[in-house]
Amino acid sequence: MEREPVLHPRLRVLNRGAIVLGPGKADLLEGIKETGSISEAAAELGMSYMRAWTLIRTMNTAFREPLVLTVRGGEARGGATLSEIGERILSTYREMENLSLSATAEKWKALRKLLRQPAGGGDLFDRR
Amino acid sequence: MEREPVLHPRLRVLNRGAIVLGPGKADLLEGIKETGSISEAAAELGMSYMRAWTLIRTMNTAFREPLVLTVRGGEARGGATLSEIGERILSTYREMENLSLSATAEKWKALRKLLRQPAGGGDLFDRR
Repeated sequence: MEREPVLHPRLRVLNRGAIVLGPGKADLLEGIKETGSISEAAAELGMSYMRAWTLIRTMNTAFREPLVLTVRGGEARGGATLSEIGERILSTYREMENLSLSATAEKWKALRKLLRQPAGGGDLFDRR
Repeated sequence: MEREPVLHPRLRVLNRGAIVLGPGKADLLEGIKETGSISEAAAELGMSYMRAWTLIRTMNTAFREPLVLTVRGGEARGGATLSEIGERILSTYREMENLSLSATAEKWKALRKLLRQPAGGGDLFDRR
């Protein structure tokens, strides 16, 4: 758990009332990219395999082409990879998060100064 | 319900593991500012009075001074206003949302082009 004040820009893309991309879906895409497996990515995120598939189905139907491709193999649940559009969408999403953080950095600095000091009398900066 | 694709930057401020400011709390502050009443603001947001008070308590203790001030009056539940710091925090939060939207506008334009076209064959722009 982060103890220092932190700003999370949780970007949510809605289309026709549905959340088609957001922090959870982006993390799932990243997990699949890293592990090559839907079940491993889901497990890392503490998400059920069924839940992961629901998110994938939402993304795959919301965009012009599927973001996640499954590879049927010898394994019980096969492997999975991101398609070209999936990679592009994930990197665009991460870029947007970074742009959001940079753009708000100055205001965030002012806002965090208004937070109460820790009970221990420490200051806002981590001096470890 | 918005039918056109929309990007929502949901900025979340975490401090010592707790969400001390986010979209729901900001909307509650705005409702109190507009209505001068916690119960009216809560009702507008479809939130229980108890829930609204929980959010207010979290904000009031997280920042250096209370954001919401209650005014005891003749009414059953009295009135409420934003303190100076409450007004400042709300306006800073809204500014950060706008900065986030501006900073991500170009990438968002590219991302929304990757969304599937509506079934009706319409395009991405609302022509009504």
